[in-house]
This record gives sequence, structure tokens and C-alpha cells, in this order.
Amino acid sequence: MDFIKEPMAIENRSMELIAPYLEGLHLDERETKLYSRLIHASGDVGYAPITRVHPEAIDRAIEALKAGAHIYTDVEMVRTGINKKKLASFGGEVHCLVADPEVAVRAKEEGITRSMVAMRQFGKALDGSIVAIGNAPTALFEVLRLVREEGIRPACIVGIPVGFVGAAESKAALASHGIVPYITVEGTKGGSPIAAAAINALMYLIDNTRP
Amino acid sequence: MDFIKEPMAIENRSMELIAPYLEGLHLDERETKLYSRLIHASGDVGYAPITRVHPEAIDRAIEALKAGAHIYTDVEMVRTGINKKKLASFGGEVHCLVADPEVAVRAKEEGITRSMVAMRQFGKALDGSIVAIGNAPTALFEVLRLVREEGIRPACIVGIPVGFVGAAESKAALASHGIVPYITVEGTKGGSPIAAAAINALMYLIDNTRP
Repeated sequence: MDFIKEPMAIENRSMELIAPYLEGLHLDERETKLYSRLIHASGDVGYAPITRVHPEAIDRAIEALKAGAHIYTDVEMVRTGINKKKLASFGGEVHCLVADPEVAVRAKEEGITRSMVAMRQFGKALDGSIVAIGNAPTALFEVLRLVREEGIRPACIVGIPVGFVGAAESKAALASHGIVPYITVEGTKGGSPIAAAAINALMYLIDNTRP
Repeated sequence: MDFIKEPMAIENRSMELIAPYLEGLHLDERETKLYSRLIHASGDVGYAPITRVHPEAIDRAIEALKAGAHIYTDVEMVRTGINKKKLASFGGEVHCLVADPEVAVRAKEEGITRSMVAMRQFGKALDGSIVAIGNAPTALFEVLRLVREEGIRPACIVGIPVGFVGAAESKAALASHGIVPYITVEGTKGGSPIAAAAINALMYLIDNTRP
């Protein structure tokens, strides 16, 4: 069987094939790279017209990452998908509390999701950080509550939860809350590889290299 | 903000919202649950018409899982997404060699992807197992080569790699190779949460409970 087997050749060819779907969206070079990675991760060109990037999101996220900002996520799959070697090269780490036994106990007691409790638990640690939500709308709603009611200020929120219950609503709330720069997607689509791809794209924009 | 916060309520409501998109596909009860989980994981009802399940795939996979079959995957994100507590209750484990240093060395030497080398490395261990490919078309092509040329016989191949270079082709090759029962998706869409969702759906079909 004849097929492309060399990793960088696969990636470069993917980006070429994605390019035509971004025409007409008036993206600059950095946005083009970011959008391309979301489409690459999902295999879905339908992400082109529904991706939403706040005008300050890329600058703020890059600034924070370069300064060693940590990443806080709702689920382990996002942590797994993030290039942690690259992140460590800037001094950052990924944190996820969804599997924490104490979080599980509290979630059961309150009858809410573990990732929602996990975000509340992070609290003040989210100041200046990058938040990456790839699964739970409840986690994104909780982050927005922390921003609005408790004055928490992440540098950037990558909010790409997935599904039919609350995902579209939580992402619309992110896009309209007016406080923290964000990267999101309209509607029900999303997921952990998409959120991780956004984070990786931001890191690769810094120095255009990958370990 | 008013939104559903209770995990089982979220899941049940999701399944209700997905149901209308499966009408007219003539699915039985088990297929309905499997398709619903793929759509749930992607937030994309576009998976309904493109999902392909070999008529023996569910029976064979369930039989194997009940007998303690192991799962072999191409990437860590699939391993992360699989309910490993549930799998362990049947005696199974998930294996992934993509981060293995020896695999990395060999991949670099040969100029091919690490997940392709990893599949080759598994070799005979794949007999009677469930293969779960959620990222790399090259890994799926290699599994099909092992099946055709080396007589390797997994019980079922869940082949849902993603992207624009080889993904559609590798999945079409899976659907037409005529030897091992499979679960796949047509076209470029796919990814690790979709592959993990298929595996989890198969496990939940066995006794309808989740730890």
C-alpha cells in the first residue's frame, strides 16, 4: 500500500489541504495556523466558519505562556493531548483535578459534575493562567462564574466543551461575557483534542518549533 | 445561571436529543447506543450517516471483552478516554507504545510514524484483541497489513483515525478488507474521543452498568 508515512510530510500536506477552507475568513497568519490545527484535530472543515477567536486572545495567551503560565483543564484527555515537553520549555505545567478523590466526594455530595468542582477548587490559581475546557460545559459555566463573581482573571480561556446539553450555551456565554479573551467554537461540536490542539497551536506560534 | 449539573441527567438528556438523528438508519438497540456515544463524544450529528459497523463487530467485540481481551491503541489520548476501571472488571488492560523510547528510535530511523512502528511491535499480541485506532491512518494501514500479510487476527478493529492525509483511505480499506469485523466512520472525521467512545459503548452494552 502506498501512503505518506513521514510525520512532518503528513502534517505539511494536511495544512495545504485545509488552506482552501479558510479562504474568505480574513484570517491573519497566526489565526490561520490556529484554525488549521483545530480542523486538523477534528478532521472537520466545518470548524472553519464556527471558530471564534477574541482579538486579544492570541497575544494574551502567548504572553502568558512565554512567562511560564500554567494550564488548568477539566479532563485528563486534554492534559494528555497537550505537548507537555513544549510547555515545560516555557516553565508551564498542566493541572487537572477531575480524578482527585476529594473532588469526586464533593461532586457526589452536591450532585454536580466533578469537573465543575475541580474548577472551583482551582480558584485563585486560575489568575494569569490559561484555562482549557475540552469536555464539560459545567466546567466552563463555573469558570465564567469565578470570573464574574469572584474576580478571577485567567489570561485566556480556551473553552471548547462538547455536546448537546449546555455546550452551545456555555460557549455563547464565553463569547459574550466581555471580560477575559477567549478561543471557542459555536454550537455543539468540540472536545478534548480540539482544546488541546488550540493550546498546542498557541505554543507553536511562539517560536515555530516543536520538540 | 440555570443549567443541568447532574452527570446522569446530562447524559440521559443528551441521548434523548441525539435519538431523532438516528431515525431512518434502521439501527437495532445496541447499534443505537453505539452510534449515540459517537455523536455524544463529537457533538456532531454528522456522524450518524457516516458510521459503519460490520454486522458481526458488536458480538465479536463483546465476546472478546467478556473473556478479558486487551485493547491495543495508537495514541495515549485513546487510552486516557477508555474507562479502564470498567475494562479491568472484565480482566482487560489498555496498551499503547507510542511514547516508548525504542519505538521513537525505530520510527526516526525508518522515517515513519511512531504509531505505525508501535502497531508492528504489538504483532502477535493483537490476536483476539480489540484494536482501537483514534489518530493515525498509518497505524490503521499497518494493522491491516498485519492482518493480510502476517495472519494476525484481532477480534474487532475500531478504526477511527482522523485527518486529511490517509484517514479516509485507511478507513475505506478497513471497511473493504473482508477479514476482521470493524467499527469505523467514512471520510476525514474521527479522533481519539470517538474511538474511546466506541470502546466504552461496547463495554456498557455488556451489563448496562458503569463504575
